[in-house]
Amino acid sequence: MKNTTLCYLERGGQYLMLRRVKKANDLNHDKWVGVGGKFEPDESPDECLLREVREETGLTLTAYRCRGVVTFVSARWETEYMYLYTATDWTGELTDCDEGELEWVDIDSVDALPLWEGDRIFFRLLREDRAFFSLKLCYDDTDTLIHAALDGQVIA
Amino acid sequence: MKNTTLCYLERGGQYLMLRRVKKANDLNHDKWVGVGGKFEPDESPDECLLREVREETGLTLTAYRCRGVVTFVSARWETEYMYLYTATDWTGELTDCDEGELEWVDIDSVDALPLWEGDRIFFRLLREDRAFFSLKLCYDDTDTLIHAALDGQVIA
Repeated sequence: MKNTTLCYLERGGQYLMLRRVKKANDLNHDKWVGVGGKFEPDESPDECLLREVREETGLTLTAYRCRGVVTFVSARWETEYMYLYTATDWTGELTDCDEGELEWVDIDSVDALPLWEGDRIFFRLLREDRAFFSLKLCYDDTDTLIHAALDGQVIA
Repeated sequence: MKNTTLCYLERGGQYLMLRRVKKANDLNHDKWVGVGGKFEPDESPDECLLREVREETGLTLTAYRCRGVVTFVSARWETEYMYLYTATDWTGELTDCDEGELEWVDIDSVDALPLWEGDRIFFRLLREDRAFFSLKLCYDDTDTLIHAALDGQVIA
C-alpha cells in the first residue's frame, strides 16, 4: 500500500489538469489527473503536497485544503490512500512538467475528459463542497469501477 | 509505515479513554489513548474505524467525524499516519477491551492523565473545533517530542 496526494489548483473557474502522456508503464497513461504523487519517507500529507506541486508545476502553494481521502483498491495496482486537495493561492511561475502536459480546464468541462470513472465521483463531491469525505473506489483488472462507497455508504 | 485510526467517543462532556495496560511490548504501555488500530489490507479509514471500535468496545458507531491526520515520526517506531476521529452516536453495549481498561473521563481532566506529549496538542485542536488538520509529531529515542508542525507551520 502507498500514501499519495493529489491536488487541483483552482483559478477563475478552471482546474489545472495534467494529461499523463510522458511516462512509460504509467497507471494514469493518457488520463487527465491533478498534480501530486507518492509520500517520501516520513513526510506528512501537506509536506508531500507542497513538494509534489513544486516539482511538477514550479508553484508554491500558499492556500490549500484537504477535501477528503480516497482509498483506491484495484486488481492490478497496489492499494493507494490518496489525500485529495484543492488549492486557491500560490506563488511562482508555472513551468513544464516531466510527467505530462499541464493545462487549465474549465471546471464545467472536466467531466468530458478521459478520466478514471471514480474521479467523476470526487469531482462531484468537490463541486458540492462536501465536508471532508472518505471515498472508497474498487477497480477490476480492466480498470472498470466495480464498487464505490462514500463515508461507508455504498453508492455504486 | 503504517496507517491507523484513533477515535474518541464523546458523551456528556466525557471521552471514552483506553488505559493501555494489557499488552506486552506496547508502544502505548500505561498511556491513556482512544480506541482504534491498524488498517487491515484494502480497508478505507472509516472501515478500519468501525471495525476497531467494534472490536475494542462492542459498539457500532453511527455518527463520527474525521478531525485530522497525525503523522507520527519516531526514532523508535515505524512512521504512522493516524486518522483521528471523534464520535457522538453509536449502538450496542460497552464491553471489556483486550488491550486495556476503558473509562469515561471528563474532557476537562484529560490533560492530567499520562499522555503522549503530542496528544495534548491534538486534544487542544479538538476543543477548538478546528477544521480538518494535518499535525506532524516527531519523537526522539526517549519518546520525547522534538518537533511539531500544524498544517505546515512549526508549533513546537
